[in-house]
Amino acid sequence: MATRTQSKKYIYAFGNGKADGNESMKNLLGGKGANLAEMAGHPKLRLPVPPGFTITTEVCNYFSQHKRHYPVGFSGQLTLAVKKLEQLSGKKFADFSHPLLLSIRSGARRSMPGMMETILNVGLNDEIVKGMIEQSGDMHFAYEAYRRLIIMYADVVLEKAAGIDTLLNGYGKGVRKFLEDKLEKYREKHGYKDHRQYKLREHKEIIKLFKNIIHKTLGQEFPDDPWQQLWGGIEAVFASWNGKRAVEYRKIEHIPDDWGTAVNVQVMVYGNMGEDSCTGVGFTRNPATGENKFYGEYLVNAQGEDVVAGIRTPAPINRSSANEQSNKLETLQKKMPKLYKELDGYQRRLEKHYRDMQDIEFTIEKGVLYMLQCRTGKRNGQAAIRMAVDMYREKLIDAKTALMRVSADQLQSVLLPSLTPAGERAAKVIAKGLPAGPGGASGRLVFTSSDAVQQVAAGEKVVLVREETSPEDVQGMHVASAILTTKGGMTSHAALVARGWGKCCIVGCADITINLKEKKLISREGLTLNEGDFISLNGTKGIVYEGALPLSQSGFEKNKYFHAFMELTNRFAKLNVRANAETKEDAQRALSFGAKGIGLFRTEHIFYGKGSEAPLLAMQKMILSPTPTERQRALNELFPFMKKDIRQILEIMEGNPVTFRLLDPPLHEFLPHEEDKIKTLAENTGIPLSSIQQQIQSLHETNPMLGHRGVRLAISYPEITMMQVKAIFEACAELIKKKKKILPEIMVPVTIDSHELQHQKKIIMEVHQQVCDNYKLKSIPFHFGTMIETPRAALLANELAIQSDFFSFGTNDLTQMTMGLSRDDIGSFLPEYIRQDMLPADPFAHIDTKGVGQLIESAVTKGKKVNRKLEIGVCGEHAGDPESIRFFKRSGVDYLSCSPFRVPVARLVAAQVEQ
Amino acid sequence: MATRTQSKKYIYAFGNGKADGNESMKNLLGGKGANLAEMAGHPKLRLPVPPGFTITTEVCNYFSQHKRHYPVGFSGQLTLAVKKLEQLSGKKFADFSHPLLLSIRSGARRSMPGMMETILNVGLNDEIVKGMIEQSGDMHFAYEAYRRLIIMYADVVLEKAAGIDTLLNGYGKGVRKFLEDKLEKYREKHGYKDHRQYKLREHKEIIKLFKNIIHKTLGQEFPDDPWQQLWGGIEAVFASWNGKRAVEYRKIEHIPDDWGTAVNVQVMVYGNMGEDSCTGVGFTRNPATGENKFYGEYLVNAQGEDVVAGIRTPAPINRSSANEQSNKLETLQKKMPKLYKELDGYQRRLEKHYRDMQDIEFTIEKGVLYMLQCRTGKRNGQAAIRMAVDMYREKLIDAKTALMRVSADQLQSVLLPSLTPAGERAAKVIAKGLPAGPGGASGRLVFTSSDAVQQVAAGEKVVLVREETSPEDVQGMHVASAILTTKGGMTSHAALVARGWGKCCIVGCADITINLKEKKLISREGLTLNEGDFISLNGTKGIVYEGALPLSQSGFEKNKYFHAFMELTNRFAKLNVRANAETKEDAQRALSFGAKGIGLFRTEHIFYGKGSEAPLLAMQKMILSPTPTERQRALNELFPFMKKDIRQILEIMEGNPVTFRLLDPPLHEFLPHEEDKIKTLAENTGIPLSSIQQQIQSLHETNPMLGHRGVRLAISYPEITMMQVKAIFEACAELIKKKKKILPEIMVPVTIDSHELQHQKKIIMEVHQQVCDNYKLKSIPFHFGTMIETPRAALLANELAIQSDFFSFGTNDLTQMTMGLSRDDIGSFLPEYIRQDMLPADPFAHIDTKGVGQLIESAVTKGKKVNRKLEIGVCGEHAGDPESIRFFKRSGVDYLSCSPFRVPVARLVAAQVEQ
Repeated sequence: MATRTQSKKYIYAFGNGKADGNESMKNLLGGKGANLAEMAGHPKLRLPVPPGFTITTEVCNYFSQHKRHYPVGFSGQLTLAVKKLEQLSGKKFADFSHPLLLSIRSGARRSMPGMMETILNVGLNDEIVKGMIEQSGDMHFAYEAYRRLIIMYADVVLEKAAGIDTLLNGYGKGVRKFLEDKLEKYREKHGYKDHRQYKLREHKEIIKLFKNIIHKTLGQEFPDDPWQQLWGGIEAVFASWNGKRAVEYRKIEHIPDDWGTAVNVQVMVYGNMGEDSCTGVGFTRNPATGENKFYGEYLVNAQGEDVVAGIRTPAPINRSSANEQSNKLETLQKKMPKLYKELDGYQRRLEKHYRDMQDIEFTIEKGVLYMLQCRTGKRNGQAAIRMAVDMYREKLIDAKTALMRVSADQLQSVLLPSLTPAGERAAKVIAKGLPAGPGGASGRLVFTSSDAVQQVAAGEKVVLVREETSPEDVQGMHVASAILTTKGGMTSHAALVARGWGKCCIVGCADITINLKEKKLISREGLTLNEGDFISLNGTKGIVYEGALPLSQSGFEKNKYFHAFMELTNRFAKLNVRANAETKEDAQRALSFGAKGIGLFRTEHIFYGKGSEAPLLAMQKMILSPTPTERQRALNELFPFMKKDIRQILEIMEGNPVTFRLLDPPLHEFLPHEEDKIKTLAENTGIPLSSIQQQIQSLHETNPMLGHRGVRLAISYPEITMMQVKAIFEACAELIKKKKKILPEIMVPVTIDSHELQHQKKIIMEVHQQVCDNYKLKSIPFHFGTMIETPRAALLANELAIQSDFFSFGTNDLTQMTMGLSRDDIGSFLPEYIRQDMLPADPFAHIDTKGVGQLIESAVTKGKKVNRKLEIGVCGEHAGDPESIRFFKRSGVDYLSCSPFRVPVARLVAAQVEQ
Repeated sequence: MATRTQSKKYIYAFGNGKADGNESMKNLLGGKGANLAEMAGHPKLRLPVPPGFTITTEVCNYFSQHKRHYPVGFSGQLTLAVKKLEQLSGKKFADFSHPLLLSIRSGARRSMPGMMETILNVGLNDEIVKGMIEQSGDMHFAYEAYRRLIIMYADVVLEKAAGIDTLLNGYGKGVRKFLEDKLEKYREKHGYKDHRQYKLREHKEIIKLFKNIIHKTLGQEFPDDPWQQLWGGIEAVFASWNGKRAVEYRKIEHIPDDWGTAVNVQVMVYGNMGEDSCTGVGFTRNPATGENKFYGEYLVNAQGEDVVAGIRTPAPINRSSANEQSNKLETLQKKMPKLYKELDGYQRRLEKHYRDMQDIEFTIEKGVLYMLQCRTGKRNGQAAIRMAVDMYREKLIDAKTALMRVSADQLQSVLLPSLTPAGERAAKVIAKGLPAGPGGASGRLVFTSSDAVQQVAAGEKVVLVREETSPEDVQGMHVASAILTTKGGMTSHAALVARGWGKCCIVGCADITINLKEKKLISREGLTLNEGDFISLNGTKGIVYEGALPLSQSGFEKNKYFHAFMELTNRFAKLNVRANAETKEDAQRALSFGAKGIGLFRTEHIFYGKGSEAPLLAMQKMILSPTPTERQRALNELFPFMKKDIRQILEIMEGNPVTFRLLDPPLHEFLPHEEDKIKTLAENTGIPLSSIQQQIQSLHETNPMLGHRGVRLAISYPEITMMQVKAIFEACAELIKKKKKILPEIMVPVTIDSHELQHQKKIIMEVHQQVCDNYKLKSIPFHFGTMIETPRAALLANELAIQSDFFSFGTNDLTQMTMGLSRDDIGSFLPEYIRQDMLPADPFAHIDTKGVGQLIESAVTKGKKVNRKLEIGVCGEHAGDPESIRFFKRSGVDYLSCSPFRVPVARLVAAQVEQ
């Protein structure tokens, strides 16, 4: 006796209130298939879904791995599945009398829009089309469906899936375009306005013409056998999973190749069968504003494709969906009130069921409503925030779910002004670079910092374009609306400064050449722009446009939903979030964004203030001092500025911790390098030009990143530390006297050994005592800690922790040294490195968990082991990066400190990582 | 009844063939005390040592810790010990009739020459001196002893130990000088030629004068009580342990403060009691040549101090000890043959007993020989080597002991030419810097590489002086006799290159300013030297002298003892030693020094060859190529040079491994930076000047150490790797065809990720296949490996090890990145760092075991865990440093690769670490 093996279930049916699958089976049925099953079969839904079945992703994988063969038993299951559809629909596949027509659609686990193939109207041929005419009573409709099938089939199955390139075969275009052109020519030749004017003979002639063209261009025949069409369609969808476009998309989106796609085969329904038919899409809430109102568009007498194609302006489904263009069109609610009510009921049911905003597709065929698709709807940042807050308040979702409903990018996006999409579509792209500071901006071209200052003073908005920026450009950068550099990476000076300010910035824009002498910008394509010409930047995407494009402002930080949402994050976040800030404005912004202190106050920033140049001049004098006495005199000049700034910040922060980092940059950064500026300095200081030049020369370093900076300066010149901590303690003392709360933290940079900390601590304690004595205070509370930004500091964390109240990882420098990558110089090779997968990502954007991460993890462990009270933070750029924050949380970090503009994002991610 | 507590033993007696202590008790009795006990008491020695006793180091520590008090019971033991001396000597302390006089000497665990105090003739006063006159029959002798006691006591006890500073008290000199001057004046006033002309009255008057001076200047009295003298002397020795000089010396020599010093109290013997008395020092073998001949000097009728003082020329003890100056003086052997024979017997006995060359002191008092001291004798490198080899051959010591008898510094010293000590003494010091390349050299001053080349071509010897050197200076550096830079640290370019060549070099010589325009050198003291003036360098000490000082050449590498000794190291060394070499000369030298292969062949060195400039020009063309085609053409030009060099090296190394490192330096290093050279390049290549300038500009990097170099270049320009490995494999193929043995290793530099290794391996395997095909070879054996020189490479060693046959730690770069120290820029702060103990040592001289060491240890462990066959080497500077080698051995490293000149040292240390 023969044994019959029960083969695996490869096909899951749905329809008529039942379904083999459900929403939880996305991995097997794809997103579309799982949702179709859910809509059709879930007892609380049972929506009118055209019956159909889903071929599993397992079949796709088998197909990919077995040279386009199918698993044993699949063929039989397919035949049975079609049989079942015949029963449910009362129609018959490959049959003239009541023809059953099918759609074949892809459906991967995660949506890959436009990446894979679809074929509609499968099941038609010269004979069966007659039955369709009979059934529909509309010859033109039937032939249009037939033509669509032939075009799609030729394109998708015969051309693409077969790997034939008609472009290369000398036809100059794909077969689809070829056929569509022929059809147009035929219409024109016959003097018809549209395809509904053809006679039956002509319809037939066109079909014949199509089949001839296919034969000639592709060397294949369009199959008249509906079963052959079905198999061909399924195969084409599977093949498209490994098509070039899909593979590239998956690579970008990190979708594994072995997920595979499912295939959904469904009974065709038609929205183009007359005035009582239509097709539409909708969202259960407004995806642009988040408002809790059903939102959608529809087209009468049209198929789904037509809505997407955008040839006809769709009408709003209700008044609240209307916009300027569609304002005067008749709403579905008005045109088909009963059906609208039915649809509205379904969308409510769906949102309640899925507990999230749904994106739906529907078709009304001769007065009967069909639900074709539902999935979680995409939304912009603003909408995401409002929906999360609203749904939480409506008790549709709990607080945790609400928290997870907003992504870091969405949150960030709402805080920035941006170019309008319409403006961008219409504008000319000059170049592309690295998106270093998000948002949009436009302004007149300037090429120097001083031009920027001058132009802005004259009331202009400017974009500062430089090869690279340096601290000397900071004034110009500050006043500019945006910054564009042709060199440098994501963590070049320009990128760092811009992100710190939340300023739009594009860096490493190699497509552009600057002629600084003539103040010209030349694009790769040869376009030349002069100083004063307008350009616009999309800093989120790294695109540079010609002209002044319109901007939409944000102001969202004042939005009540934003505040409600940020409130929510506080319930969950355990990682503390502080801001990196030096100015009054930044500190206030940090507070308004909910920062719990300042984690990095760069004491050197006083020298780049917008106001007086006196501090920088005093600093320069200090550096140029030939004797300790003169150095001390210069430091004394510097002192009041330092103290004033520090006092201001401490007062604003009202007892929240403020971490003052002692002087970090190498001294040459404070001296000018341009001839005329050196001359001015000589005049201003009375120091001979040659002495200044000699000092600049002698301060020159081969690798300044690894040079005489940070605590090394403080050990060479202890008087600098003394001046700084005296300023801190006196500021504190005065505030204490005024009954203000303060919590200063003193942080040593570039530490490599515990002896350095001992050395600095001794100085600090001495100054502390002096100030306490002078102000008759018993003590001034403060914390003492160190940056961990050299690999050695991380390796010796146990020794440093004994000396420290806190650590703060300087992940930028730690990454530079651990990986041997100078962030100023990576432009010449890092992009290629990432393109070739030498590294998984830009390690300055996302922390390198594998290498740098090892050092961080072990430093946290070692540090906390010897000092349980040790507080550990991160104050590098990575502290504002969601991916990195997740790693820091796992590593045992206690707080983050990022630029004020990243504080909300950091707070969000800090809350989300706790889930 | 009262209980009597037995107090600890604080005093160890010796003399009369017995001793409480022995040689093994150095920690308790000090070196001197232990050896005195051994000489006096060991049954096989029992030498005539003047009886005495040693006060232990424990007493010293007690004294230091208890405010100059002594432990309970000590006083009683001291009284008893003196009693015992009285018994042994038949004399009586503090007694007029047979006065016992004592010496009091310090004696620490390790010798601290001249750092602590000595007092002789203790026990004299106005009365007892009379007894001494009676006993010796020599009034002048007795009074001289008395005067010496008073001077020493005033100086050591009353002044120094009491902490009185007569200099500050207005006397302008110490009390010793004061007294000595008075004595001279007294003699002159009385018109005497020497002190033996005084009348008794005058002797007494001087004593009185002395005592008055002491009273006036120090406010104290010279104690007439011998016991008070004894106690005072002991206290002074203990106090001198904590004297400023001693403390500083211990810090430099890393001697712990709590070792303490012992005090040796001994019966006085006198070599100045007439023509039948003498005093002398000897070595059981010649300490300068190592020859196995008793060597020594003596002075008739003199005390030990007189030999040291160098006022009279000492006579040789035998003919073989005579030198030019002492040639005509009567030897001890001739003058007192019987006593010489006795002495010779003792020295033989001592060497045999100690199994090492001994440094002895003796005194003959009226025909009686006394042995005063013996200790292991210091010797120079040459002597150390010869003694080790001889003693091993004589079976006096075993091979292991012989191996340990030569220090790395001693071995290194014998291979270098050096300035003669006499020359240095007579010369004027211009400046001091960092000793970057040991040995001595002199030559005419030149300030540019081209001047150096020109002058040397004209037959001159030159010293190249630069602020810093760069690869462009290499030709000049190569021809120069020595290199002097005013900037840069111990691992600056100049230092590295010089050490590689074994060339004399001083770097970071900040005392000197260079005026390049006028070709002048100005010293801090204002001395100006012009081009062409002579200077001389002691590269071992970092001293620059004016003028051309005489040199003594080495040539010791041909010495038979050197070879025999190096042979010995081979028996023990497990760490393999290879050399870093690129040229034929270096490779041959490496072999002659016993290198077991080449561990680092820098492929880029071909561009700095002494011969043709063609390779560099081809490289420059390659860099300046605007298109891949032109780049390939330039690489093709480069190829034959590369192949020729590689083939030559492989052939010389005869199957020993040769590690070829792929291109490492950033490209801009190959382009000129001086205007005229850029012009020449434009002419030579036909490339427009502006293009070259632009390329130089665009290759400029902020931190080139962390820039576009190493494997990063190879990933940007795979064709460079292809050319290099093609050269390697073709060279191999040709040698294989000639039946030569070869073992090439291909090494990837600046690796940070295993993907980089995969990328390079793929290229290498492709080229390998091509070459095998072309030469009809089945395979060409080779190893593939990577540098570990970034912290990330060390952290990811487990991943890299899967791809690698070997690792080679590039400890220079690893140190730079781990510690954030650019070796080109450390000059401005590292010396201060080391001075202030921020770091224990220059981490580029000795590996930073604490920080960098952690990475090395874990990388070795991780690497060997996943790849048991992985061979791990070190090819940085540290591979030639003894301290570092010890660490590498502990870490599990398999081989070292250092500059050829360091190979013998590395082999020695490699053998020594196995003990």
